Amino acid sequence: MGELLDDLRAALGEASVLTGEDARQTTLSPWTRLGEPLAVLKPRSTAEVSTVLRLAHAAGAAVVPWGGRTGLVDGAQADGALALSLERMNAVEAVDAASGTMRVQAGCPLQAACEAAEAGGLMLPLDLGSRGSATIGGNISTNAGGNRVLRYGMMRDMVLGLEAVLADGTVVDALNSLIKNNTGYDIKQLFIGTEGTLGVVTRAVLRLRPKPASQNVAFLAVDAFEALPRLLRRFEMSLGLSAFEVLWPEFYDLVTTPPAKGSPPLPRGHAFYVLIEALGGEAEADGEAFEAALAGALESGDLVDAVIAKSDAERGALWALRDDVGQTRRVAPRTIAFDVSLPIAAMPPYVADVRAALPEAVVFGHLGDGNLHIIADAGDGSAGARHAVETKVYQPLRNRGGVVSAEHGIGLMKREYLAWSRSPEELAVMRAMKAALDPQGTLNPGKVFETA
Amino acid sequence: MGELLDDLRAALGEASVLTGEDARQTTLSPWTRLGEPLAVLKPRSTAEVSTVLRLAHAAGAAVVPWGGRTGLVDGAQADGALALSLERMNAVEAVDAASGTMRVQAGCPLQAACEAAEAGGLMLPLDLGSRGSATIGGNISTNAGGNRVLRYGMMRDMVLGLEAVLADGTVVDALNSLIKNNTGYDIKQLFIGTEGTLGVVTRAVLRLRPKPASQNVAFLAVDAFEALPRLLRRFEMSLGLSAFEVLWPEFYDLVTTPPAKGSPPLPRGHAFYVLIEALGGEAEADGEAFEAALAGALESGDLVDAVIAKSDAERGALWALRDDVGQTRRVAPRTIAFDVSLPIAAMPPYVADVRAALPEAVVFGHLGDGNLHIIADAGDGSAGARHAVETKVYQPLRNRGGVVSAEHGIGLMKREYLAWSRSPEELAVMRAMKAALDPQGTLNPGKVFETA
Repeated sequence: MGELLDDLRAALGEASVLTGEDARQTTLSPWTRLGEPLAVLKPRSTAEVSTVLRLAHAAGAAVVPWGGRTGLVDGAQADGALALSLERMNAVEAVDAASGTMRVQAGCPLQAACEAAEAGGLMLPLDLGSRGSATIGGNISTNAGGNRVLRYGMMRDMVLGLEAVLADGTVVDALNSLIKNNTGYDIKQLFIGTEGTLGVVTRAVLRLRPKPASQNVAFLAVDAFEALPRLLRRFEMSLGLSAFEVLWPEFYDLVTTPPAKGSPPLPRGHAFYVLIEALGGEAEADGEAFEAALAGALESGDLVDAVIAKSDAERGALWALRDDVGQTRRVAPRTIAFDVSLPIAAMPPYVADVRAALPEAVVFGHLGDGNLHIIADAGDGSAGARHAVETKVYQPLRNRGGVVSAEHGIGLMKREYLAWSRSPEELAVMRAMKAALDPQGTLNPGKVFETA
Repeated sequence: MGELLDDLRAALGEASVLTGEDARQTTLSPWTRLGEPLAVLKPRSTAEVSTVLRLAHAAGAAVVPWGGRTGLVDGAQADGALALSLERMNAVEAVDAASGTMRVQAGCPLQAACEAAEAGGLMLPLDLGSRGSATIGGNISTNAGGNRVLRYGMMRDMVLGLEAVLADGTVVDALNSLIKNNTGYDIKQLFIGTEGTLGVVTRAVLRLRPKPASQNVAFLAVDAFEALPRLLRRFEMSLGLSAFEVLWPEFYDLVTTPPAKGSPPLPRGHAFYVLIEALGGEAEADGEAFEAALAGALESGDLVDAVIAKSDAERGALWALRDDVGQTRRVAPRTIAFDVSLPIAAMPPYVADVRAALPEAVVFGHLGDGNLHIIADAGDGSAGARHAVETKVYQPLRNRGGVVSAEHGIGLMKREYLAWSRSPEELAVMRAMKAALDPQGTLNPGKVFETA
């Protein structure tokens, strides 16, 4: 491997190949375990990424792509591998307001991309907590979800085209910028949500949306689970609904009780609290429609109490409650954050099962998308303790059409449960795709599933 | 092959294996050339589809999936192959209003699926002219577009999960019904828009949307191309815009002059006519917002004249103008219908180039999606005459970021132009996918690209 590192230094320059303590410093992340990479590489261009992959491929060395390193499933763990950081490829290359698209390099942080879109009078609608660090390339590789999936879909729905480098260094230019393009296979799909195992995304063309002229936010109290899907459909029908976030009461109590900074916008004691957001194009009319929709829901009895935010500060305060996930550290010194997906109708018995097994578990999530987050006590944090908790959370999904990852992905952490969510024939097709595009298995090896 | 047919008869029953004149009768389509299949098979279940593919694979026989046979690129041409018709697998298996999904068999006609969704209080938003014959399986295999892509996306955006049978008969159950599912590769993408070359879609889970409470339609006159994208953005911002269909004046004249039945809703002589449609959730407020948006556009000068439909009959009459594509037969006895996609800003010089080469060409299309349809004189209909016209339509796309198929696909008809729209590395990845999933090349062989 010494020779490979020499070749990489010759190709990229000394400063782009970090080893030893310099490399170790880059692996200090509070979010994810990054392991001990052989070296950390910082290419400045697609051509350099291609060189890295070509040299590594020839040497049979593993390469692990790094974006913002905010993933939650150890998908960037690079033990003994070359860590390929895209951080220097962080430019917004173009914002085309006329066609409603932007072209960015993969290492561009999500927030920077969103700000560039906004400066162009448009909106990149992906929104998630790690927006300041997470990169566009990472968002694509993990098919990121977040707060506004209900209205705008996941990252997959925002990618019009991309450029990716295959395991052998081949650069694939699939930088389509058209909304409709049925010329042959839509090969960009191979690089979206495949966690860097089929190629390294280097650039992307993203679809932008009109910037909303109105944002209406309310906090609701609901006393029966059956009312939640009815309210969801009602608001979806009449409003440009962009969020329908449900907080189970334990989570509500945590984020509205000191040391949390939030104060309760509605009395405690209800069965469910819901944050809803609607985005629209006509401020005055949208505000009236929002109030009318809430009034109708109150009248129907499905909604028992509600408060509408009247200013940006109030909107921010309501969202801050939903986002104050850090409070769940009060549940236990070590916790596991789960990210399951299941049909809405299956949620009450599922949550009851989880609660019976893990009474301290805290539940909240993007109910409009069928996505629940569950925070549970990880015990002593050992593999055995984690496995016991995971089984209690995942097992009750199996006969309910649920899956172990709605948005975080599989990485290393959920690999042993992948077969609980997908059919054997699906797994065989995944392996066939991996074998076709990375026959040596050098690209992010062992992530998503074990390679022979 | 006699033995194969005997085996198929034994497995499916005599009545499910048509040969000779019975087979020939099924190939009489006004839309597409179906060739002379060895036999036409009509399986009744996924298990029977699997049996067909397993037997054909063992015998090295080609299999061509058939949906509604309304494709426009000869993608179902089955010369010397087994034609696998899904017509008997036409059931709507379930409509789940609570989760907003439906499960259908692949042979279900689009219109029947839409009606079942509507009976369940929801909407399947795919809408295209051949809705009565085109099937869900065909819509998936071709990633169908149509009239409301602007609002709801293409078929790809409506497919949550599917079941497909691989070339060797393996049944892949990927019938996901969740909006968010990041457990491993999203393998359903392999079967969407790949024109039946990687697998035969047998069932699908589709995402449904709330049924709109309002439909507002107007016909607009616009005198400058530059005003069109401004109007598009303006309406997208403030309305639930679902269609922005532009008619160049030659097309407008054709569909409003006898023998066409339509009468002109606006005076002739304008540079462009636009049909817009907005769908919303609150009838009264939406109508007011629609009128206000048009008033604002008139005031801005971008819009020079407009008429708003005031009844279902009037809405139908305006849409009928756009849909009366049959009038283009008056241009020439034999025509070719093109389906190109390009950036909106590139349209004026592109259309000028095409008009310079083909003065009689008629242009209209889904401008909001960047998709133009061009109807041109096919001369004597010979391969040489067609090729000459195709070159004149496709060549000017090449340096403008355009592609030869927005929604119809490649099939056999556009195969020689695929390399004008996609990079060599993209084509290599397509071939790698084909080799991975259908190494013998028996599934819809030669469609999209030539297989060795």
